[in-house]
Amino acid sequence: MPTRFPGWHFLQIPGPSNVPMRVLQEIARPTVDHRGPDFPALTRDVMAGLKWVFGTEAPVIIYPASGTGAWEAALVNTLSPGDRVLMFETGHFGVEWADVATRLGVRVDMVPGDWRRGPDPQVVEERLRADSDQSYKAVAVLHNETSTGAVGRIAEVRAAMDRADHSALLLVDTISSLGSLDYRHDEWGVDVTVGASQKGLMLPPGLSFTAVSAKALAASKDASLPRSYWDWQRMIDQNERGYFPFTPASNLLFGLREAFAMMREEGLENVFERHSRHGEATRRAVASWGLENQCANPAEYSGVLTAVRLPDGCDAGPVMAIAWERYALSLGVGLGKLRGRVFRIGHLGDFNDLMLAAMLAGVESSLALAGVPIERGGVDSAMRYLEDVGR
Amino acid sequence: MPTRFPGWHFLQIPGPSNVPMRVLQEIARPTVDHRGPDFPALTRDVMAGLKWVFGTEAPVIIYPASGTGAWEAALVNTLSPGDRVLMFETGHFGVEWADVATRLGVRVDMVPGDWRRGPDPQVVEERLRADSDQSYKAVAVLHNETSTGAVGRIAEVRAAMDRADHSALLLVDTISSLGSLDYRHDEWGVDVTVGASQKGLMLPPGLSFTAVSAKALAASKDASLPRSYWDWQRMIDQNERGYFPFTPASNLLFGLREAFAMMREEGLENVFERHSRHGEATRRAVASWGLENQCANPAEYSGVLTAVRLPDGCDAGPVMAIAWERYALSLGVGLGKLRGRVFRIGHLGDFNDLMLAAMLAGVESSLALAGVPIERGGVDSAMRYLEDVGR
Amino acid sequence: MPTRFPGWHFLQIPGPSNVPMRVLQEIARPTVDHRGPDFPALTRDVMAGLKWVFGTEAPVIIYPASGTGAWEAALVNTLSPGDRVLMFETGHFGVEWADVATRLGVRVDMVPGDWRRGPDPQVVEERLRADSDQSYKAVAVLHNETSTGAVGRIAEVRAAMDRADHSALLLVDTISSLGSLDYRHDEWGVDVTVGASQKGLMLPPGLSFTAVSAKALAASKDASLPRSYWDWQRMIDQNERGYFPFTPASNLLFGLREAFAMMREEGLENVFERHSRHGEATRRAVASWGLENQCANPAEYSGVLTAVRLPDGCDAGPVMAIAWERYALSLGVGLGKLRGRVFRIGHLGDFNDLMLAAMLAGVESSLALAGVPIERGGVDSAMRYLEDVGR
Amino acid sequence: MPTRFPGWHFLQIPGPSNVPMRVLQEIARPTVDHRGPDFPALTRDVMAGLKWVFGTEAPVIIYPASGTGAWEAALVNTLSPGDRVLMFETGHFGVEWADVATRLGVRVDMVPGDWRRGPDPQVVEERLRADSDQSYKAVAVLHNETSTGAVGRIAEVRAAMDRADHSALLLVDTISSLGSLDYRHDEWGVDVTVGASQKGLMLPPGLSFTAVSAKALAASKDASLPRSYWDWQRMIDQNERGYFPFTPASNLLFGLREAFAMMREEGLENVFERHSRHGEATRRAVASWGLENQCANPAEYSGVLTAVRLPDGCDAGPVMAIAWERYALSLGVGLGKLRGRVFRIGHLGDFNDLMLAAMLAGVESSLALAGVPIERGGVDSAMRYLEDVGR
Repeated sequence: MPTRFPGWHFLQIPGPSNVPMRVLQEIARPTVDHRGPDFPALTRDVMAGLKWVFGTEAPVIIYPASGTGAWEAALVNTLSPGDRVLMFETGHFGVEWADVATRLGVRVDMVPGDWRRGPDPQVVEERLRADSDQSYKAVAVLHNETSTGAVGRIAEVRAAMDRADHSALLLVDTISSLGSLDYRHDEWGVDVTVGASQKGLMLPPGLSFTAVSAKALAASKDASLPRSYWDWQRMIDQNERGYFPFTPASNLLFGLREAFAMMREEGLENVFERHSRHGEATRRAVASWGLENQCANPAEYSGVLTAVRLPDGCDAGPVMAIAWERYALSLGVGLGKLRGRVFRIGHLGDFNDLMLAAMLAGVESSLALAGVPIERGGVDSAMRYLEDVGR
Repeated sequence: MPTRFPGWHFLQIPGPSNVPMRVLQEIARPTVDHRGPDFPALTRDVMAGLKWVFGTEAPVIIYPASGTGAWEAALVNTLSPGDRVLMFETGHFGVEWADVATRLGVRVDMVPGDWRRGPDPQVVEERLRADSDQSYKAVAVLHNETSTGAVGRIAEVRAAMDRADHSALLLVDTISSLGSLDYRHDEWGVDVTVGASQKGLMLPPGLSFTAVSAKALAASKDASLPRSYWDWQRMIDQNERGYFPFTPASNLLFGLREAFAMMREEGLENVFERHSRHGEATRRAVASWGLENQCANPAEYSGVLTAVRLPDGCDAGPVMAIAWERYALSLGVGLGKLRGRVFRIGHLGDFNDLMLAAMLAGVESSLALAGVPIERGGVDSAMRYLEDVGR
Repeated sequence: MPTRFPGWHFLQIPGPSNVPMRVLQEIARPTVDHRGPDFPALTRDVMAGLKWVFGTEAPVIIYPASGTGAWEAALVNTLSPGDRVLMFETGHFGVEWADVATRLGVRVDMVPGDWRRGPDPQVVEERLRADSDQSYKAVAVLHNETSTGAVGRIAEVRAAMDRADHSALLLVDTISSLGSLDYRHDEWGVDVTVGASQKGLMLPPGLSFTAVSAKALAASKDASLPRSYWDWQRMIDQNERGYFPFTPASNLLFGLREAFAMMREEGLENVFERHSRHGEATRRAVASWGLENQCANPAEYSGVLTAVRLPDGCDAGPVMAIAWERYALSLGVGLGKLRGRVFRIGHLGDFNDLMLAAMLAGVESSLALAGVPIERGGVDSAMRYLEDVGR
Repeated sequence: MPTRFPGWHFLQIPGPSNVPMRVLQEIARPTVDHRGPDFPALTRDVMAGLKWVFGTEAPVIIYPASGTGAWEAALVNTLSPGDRVLMFETGHFGVEWADVATRLGVRVDMVPGDWRRGPDPQVVEERLRADSDQSYKAVAVLHNETSTGAVGRIAEVRAAMDRADHSALLLVDTISSLGSLDYRHDEWGVDVTVGASQKGLMLPPGLSFTAVSAKALAASKDASLPRSYWDWQRMIDQNERGYFPFTPASNLLFGLREAFAMMREEGLENVFERHSRHGEATRRAVASWGLENQCANPAEYSGVLTAVRLPDGCDAGPVMAIAWERYALSLGVGLGKLRGRVFRIGHLGDFNDLMLAAMLAGVESSLALAGVPIERGGVDSAMRYLEDVGR
């Protein structure tokens, strides 16, 4: 039995995504003194890049932490024990963020959902209108629900809040969409946007972010959940001088700077268009196979990932095992109650048409070998679409 | 004015330390699926290495976070709002940890200090004996105070606590000593040991750790400070199966595995002996220069760093600036109230005799060029000592 | 116009092949003293690996040079000015090697060919039988003609020479087959085998090799073509002690050692079988498209590359341009008189099924977009074959 | 016995020199298609850099080969069998180049020497004046004799040739000086300059070069030594279009481009000045130790290396062994008849003051531990000189 699998491994989970070599090499630069005279230039470069991809002029805080940490940061900086937050059961990560809130002592009102669509702006409006004493301190939604591939319509959620004339903060998770899908923190009136490094930003995991509106920063003055590591104000104070209140993950920051350089070379609009195109190509393949997309609302289809539902009686486990063992292809497992029911295909980050073809070929062969009843021709449909749509 | 400084840069701050190329290359490996079937092998390897350097059979928790995060983790998992903790003003980091505790809602009793020695075991005993109602929930001390180069005598602190027959937990910070100085979590009866990646473990910053005794784990059941990201139990549950409850900083874990391989090749006793030897060599140079060590207690001299006091009227700023601009040598700034008064020399991590000679030569020349009145011959004293003592 | 093309570039020329990251990282290790005490261990490791892939116990000489240099080495070490050599017009590289010989002062008798098959063993026998005064000093053939994808049947050529009872040396070029196709220097009675680093051995270009039989070494004593850099004897003398008579390309040697480690992990038989399988999968795709293989003899099909003939009136230029500009896919240009008439697909080195699928998808789309009349379904045929044949 | 030596290894032989990480990382980029549309840009960049460091507008030829190969190239392109060449016994490499010439069938007239100085321009003039029938076809000298650290005064050699009104070509070896010492191919009227990658250009070994004057190129039309790999004309023809007649060592070319970028950032004059300064600092250390420089002519002292003579009765072997085993310091062995009598210190390439201090500290300690009778204080002398002379 060979111990080596030749060639490239295809990391087609919905993040971490394939890290480009230019970023890997930057991460492998010698570590520097984070209190030295040259460090502020690095800080300023990554801060400029972050504001650019978040679409904001507001402060962005960088944490040496996973995205889960930034979830916590968004909550502890804005809320007090017992505060009410409106959240949506859009899928596994919607549930998880609510769990974090609950563990921290916040009261979550969870709008139930079927894990096949984003948060309903109509429901937002109804709930907030009904909240006549403005008891909700925040509405927290996901821009891209990574367990289902449904994109939250953030601008519409904001509009619903405005229509309800409610003072709640709008907290948005862009962990799996930042740098892949169009996003506008300022224009859309978001108060706290949470992001992370290991998806559209093409880095390994280890960094997460919060973009913070003036309203959110003001709310943090009164928020009384205990906080130290996640505290915004100390970060902002030090960042202004180009430093951090504690040791930053400097090598990942080198990589982040390079990732922004690469995104500028490609053009942010082109990056978004590419993700959109690869989402559509993937959905065409899925349709060719006769399979169903977990996301049931075409207006919310994601350019980041596609969650593929298997026919009743089929288990995703063997498909994924074949993909990995025979094709060195990592697919995303179904999360929470979708385990076994779906597998997830990531088509994000440093990705192109032929990587997509490779991935779809691996999925198609794995489905066939696992005995899932499919029509062939998925790769072909995707490639023809890409031929037609151009680059 | 050239924009490039030729040759190696000497990162002689007391951490982050110079990251060896083998580790950098591992960090630059393609990111993998942290939920994939091969991941548990990596988890097990790094867990085994961590237990080895912490000197424990107890669980070790890995956080994608700076050491400051693990400080917070040690507190929120063991304490409840208003709990009393005994801490020591051993230097800047002693003060900082206390600040974290205070911000989180813990009551800190800080034993004042002169920033020139470790925590006094005698005082520990006195304070705990005086605490007849066992109101202290924890004693928190530093193994290596990175701002002064004083090593806390942890076994003696433990003995003092035992003599006082007190139930408080013993929390120890080994952020700058782990993997450089002999440390024994189990043997010394420590309850929570905090560590980090970017010092003796030779990694870039971005990972931190807590080793957790059974007593500490039991205490966490009743501890009511809100926690989610830092929560031990979910980590332990997932780690047992080789996974993590949220995305780990996988590329740093690759590097950590390699760092342990390197430490095994060298031998942990040899690593400790090397740090001890380089500490003595540095102190001989400092003595040759006619300068004073900030650590005033020879029983507590550190093999990790040496904080060098400048004569009255001399400012460390120009010395450090010359070291950087003329010799590409990063020295550690004096922290807190020692700013300007001392500079700190790191001699830890992936380091050897000739790197020490280079660094001391740079310090000696920088002192001379900055006009600090010194005797020459520091490099010579250090090298002769190293010749005599062997390798 | 974006200046960056996202994702991986597919280097599917018939060498240099995609260099695996493990090899790239080894090449990026700090350079060492080639006269130092540790160097012989490296020399011995790579020598052992070379003997293994060449299938020989005889000396193998390593040149810091392209394969063209090793061609020259094979000639100047064995021949004298005016010596006759029998060569075959199997394609561009057959012609090129003959040109080298001619330039060096050797008389080449070139057997004409149609660039669609390997050297005919029958013709070898006839020519040598006709050479009653044993005037041919060597027969020089290619194991894998990289311009056409035709594999020379070396064992049959040897048998033909034996049947003719001729004393000529047998010189064989394995530049594009070494480490990809089964090869047996000793068993097949080859006198000089020429190889290079940048194909099946998965390295960048810069190293080439000659394996040298005892008979060839004896012949070198009398061979009077001037030689210095290429001289075998000085190499052999120094290599025995683990050193080289002049500075070796040490970083490429690090990479070579790693490449052998990877080949051992996979198993050499598995490597050969994989290339064979990918050759067949590619030919099935080509057949699906309704296109023709430049190699006209199924007994000589290559697992390394497939040269695809375009229909009359079609030019390969636009196909390759589209592949590169739109898909970041490098295909091999038609060489010599095949320019424009064929393009070449490399499926060698560090390669796997999904890379093949990606490459074939890129070729299929590029053909379609260039307006070459093809049937679709090439990727599908290839993947179904790979599903069936297993791994 | 530990199997790992911690920290950096100091490669202080006179080449290969320490390769900077930026260059190593470039070498580790994915290999590209050397016949692809993007390749000419790389070719042009490295050609521009080469002309810059050679100080020429003439063609420079790049060989995938060691410097020894470029020696051969300089000869076979310009000479015919039996041609006379005037050479100088300046040291081991002077003798070696003459050996190459002899092996290739050229008649070498070797001017005897004591291995302690460069070629005497006066002798050049006398020999050429005495050669009334212009029988010498070339004068071949070394710019930097790497075995002794004596710098040939090329401009004076040229002037001597001009005074003698002789038509011989001037061939110069800059293998160990290119990019470290001031050199001017055009201004000094050199016909063929030979260089290599692994010294001042900060690359690993594997590339060598010849810069070729119009006169040399004209001579090559009539030169009848057989040649193919080394042939200039085919290279020049292809290079003009940005390509190479056979596969170039592309990854080393990536590194070369980066090395030129680094040299431009530092400034070529600053690079030369730095080498000069480090040569003087090293000589001051040697003088402090009471040891002698192998180069006996102060006008010919080298900024690249210093060959240190040991007192009678002392063997360099144990000094070098201690340096390696105890300090991970590679020193250059005495070559040819100087074996055991000298060791050589390289202070070239990517090097700075603290690396020099480290190296001298290692040498001083190794000398002391080996029992060589020296005065201490070498590092101190060097560092004080460097303090005074500034940067």
